Amino acid sequence: MIAGERFSVVYRLTGNTEEAQRKARDICLEQTVEFPAELVPKGFIREQVVGRIESMAQIGGDIHEAEISYAVETTAGELTQLLNVIFGNISIKPGIKVESLRLPAALLEAYRGPRFGRQGLRDRLGVQDRPLLFTALKPMGLSARQLAEMAYKCALGGIDIIKDDHGLTNQCFASYAERVALCAEAVEKANRVTGQNAIYVANVTAPAGEVFPRAQQAKEAGAGGLMAAPALLGLDAMRQLADDDRVGLPIFSHPAFQGSYVLNKDSGISHYALFGQITRLAGADAVIYPNFGGRFSFSREECAAIVRGTAAEMAHLKPIFPSPGGGMSLDSIEEMLAVYGREVIFLVGGGLFRHGPDLVENCRHFRRLIEKK
Amino acid sequence: MIAGERFSVVYRLTGNTEEAQRKARDICLEQTVEFPAELVPKGFIREQVVGRIESMAQIGGDIHEAEISYAVETTAGELTQLLNVIFGNISIKPGIKVESLRLPAALLEAYRGPRFGRQGLRDRLGVQDRPLLFTALKPMGLSARQLAEMAYKCALGGIDIIKDDHGLTNQCFASYAERVALCAEAVEKANRVTGQNAIYVANVTAPAGEVFPRAQQAKEAGAGGLMAAPALLGLDAMRQLADDDRVGLPIFSHPAFQGSYVLNKDSGISHYALFGQITRLAGADAVIYPNFGGRFSFSREECAAIVRGTAAEMAHLKPIFPSPGGGMSLDSIEEMLAVYGREVIFLVGGGLFRHGPDLVENCRHFRRLIEKK
Repeated sequence: MIAGERFSVVYRLTGNTEEAQRKARDICLEQTVEFPAELVPKGFIREQVVGRIESMAQIGGDIHEAEISYAVETTAGELTQLLNVIFGNISIKPGIKVESLRLPAALLEAYRGPRFGRQGLRDRLGVQDRPLLFTALKPMGLSARQLAEMAYKCALGGIDIIKDDHGLTNQCFASYAERVALCAEAVEKANRVTGQNAIYVANVTAPAGEVFPRAQQAKEAGAGGLMAAPALLGLDAMRQLADDDRVGLPIFSHPAFQGSYVLNKDSGISHYALFGQITRLAGADAVIYPNFGGRFSFSREECAAIVRGTAAEMAHLKPIFPSPGGGMSLDSIEEMLAVYGREVIFLVGGGLFRHGPDLVENCRHFRRLIEKK
Repeated sequence: MIAGERFSVVYRLTGNTEEAQRKARDICLEQTVEFPAELVPKGFIREQVVGRIESMAQIGGDIHEAEISYAVETTAGELTQLLNVIFGNISIKPGIKVESLRLPAALLEAYRGPRFGRQGLRDRLGVQDRPLLFTALKPMGLSARQLAEMAYKCALGGIDIIKDDHGLTNQCFASYAERVALCAEAVEKANRVTGQNAIYVANVTAPAGEVFPRAQQAKEAGAGGLMAAPALLGLDAMRQLADDDRVGLPIFSHPAFQGSYVLNKDSGISHYALFGQITRLAGADAVIYPNFGGRFSFSREECAAIVRGTAAEMAHLKPIFPSPGGGMSLDSIEEMLAVYGREVIFLVGGGLFRHGPDLVENCRHFRRLIEKK
């Protein structure tokens, strides 16, 4: 009934050694049988279904790391249930943090992973040798026509990827259908001038029954990618979108509503696992997250961990692009190039407007700064 | 373009008065236009789309509460976008916690809310005058036949609601289709003996494309309710399930993967807002959460806040049942009755098995303890 293949999770546990050991034993039960230890039926349930402590190490005063393995069969090949085994009930217990996942090919074979990944996205954009440039259309309240005009200018100025701000959905100010049609057309028009392959990315974070229809609408209108916020939609809804061959567009993951998993030092999920490993499992081709030094709180080290997670060994799953953004200004580009190197998508939103009154010229300036390197 | 109706969110902000004021002003921009303040277009965008600080009060040394209002139109009648305005990007900023929501009828009219609510569920079960009894089928690894036998015994012993453990999805040990058919049948068989209306609740936490088919399968098999973990599925996917007239079964919300929103004192979402208000908006008829005094960490005060949230005034949205569980034992029933009163669903899982070797007798004992009051 159980083939013997196991995956494992490295948890960071707070407390002294005895407490950490108790926590680790508790996780083994809580995440699988959720049953009093003494009553767990003997045989394969006790021996294979219950989680197993593979190793345990003290890594600081009151900090331990435990690697706990689970039978692949407990996850039923479902991302929802995999996340449930990794961190379902114990998300409610203090002092437990998911540090990293160790997923064997036997588990990963149930997941297609990112359709494009880094190289696929580069090929679509026709840009092989430099960081990619990314911006957002805003503010909410502009009409679809005004947003499309902005999209045109950004594409004309050399931005590679132009997305809806994540707060633009289907408001009366700029309905989804009208906005997507006009913005996709505007970017296409600019491409005919520049000879480039810039893409417009539509935000499909939407009510559950609307995600697929909006994705199809975007595709028909000529959009070149889709943005989804998996904490609002469900991580598996993003996976479904990425897997759907009728859609087949690059997926950009947005961190809205996702911060609570990473803000707590002692519980939640690490930046590496959430924005790297789990986002890849859920099929995104690029992961947007708040950069260090901007108006959010991520540290340089946490951002570096995300970058590692986007390319860590995960069987056939392609590496994806880290896309730091959120409060980045043109002034910080040089430092960012030093930190991120070439395999990155730089997202600059409001900062593009601050540089000067001419949006096309601001974009060109941004592009020159990147190309200079 | 904007009718003038606004909803508001009460945020708890950490920091001194100057910092709290800066945070509040930042939230007004971040959650709407996400644009530099000085560049926000004049007119209705600046005056109505940008969030507005309605009031601000110091409630402790370095703790302030700010009520910030937003135009109803910013949410586009979508639960996903409402959650995004309430707590999307600022989930990633430290020191901001959603305390409560103030939602006018003009916003709530876009939401059906719980289909049954407390009274509807009581009517279906034919139990008007006492707390309801709830248990879970487990451990994972048992066959569908073994789980169904357990369901039969629980219903025979007088449990009102018998659900899949939240880790049971579609594992090879007990496939969804077989389990749901056998368990629904077993509870029906027991009802013919007892003359009661116990229900079997199937867990439909599943891959995005599977939720609806599994719900229909459960309904056809005779299940009397559905359980969904909204942090795994997406809150709006639960709302969609609750709204779907082709399904039309009571919905039980499970907190798996949701803990990270409430574990941090200074950020995230309050117990009141998440397990009370937001769970109701998302259509659940009962909210499962870890009880105080069990093996989880919620305090008695936090549980009381959840109870308040399940029945707080929200226009036409029905009050729903709090369903404390997780590590409750039969010994604690008396204290729980004192705290929760009558309008509650007591969830006892492993504790039912611990009481003695005869499961039917254990259930009867549990029922007697409740009825004695």
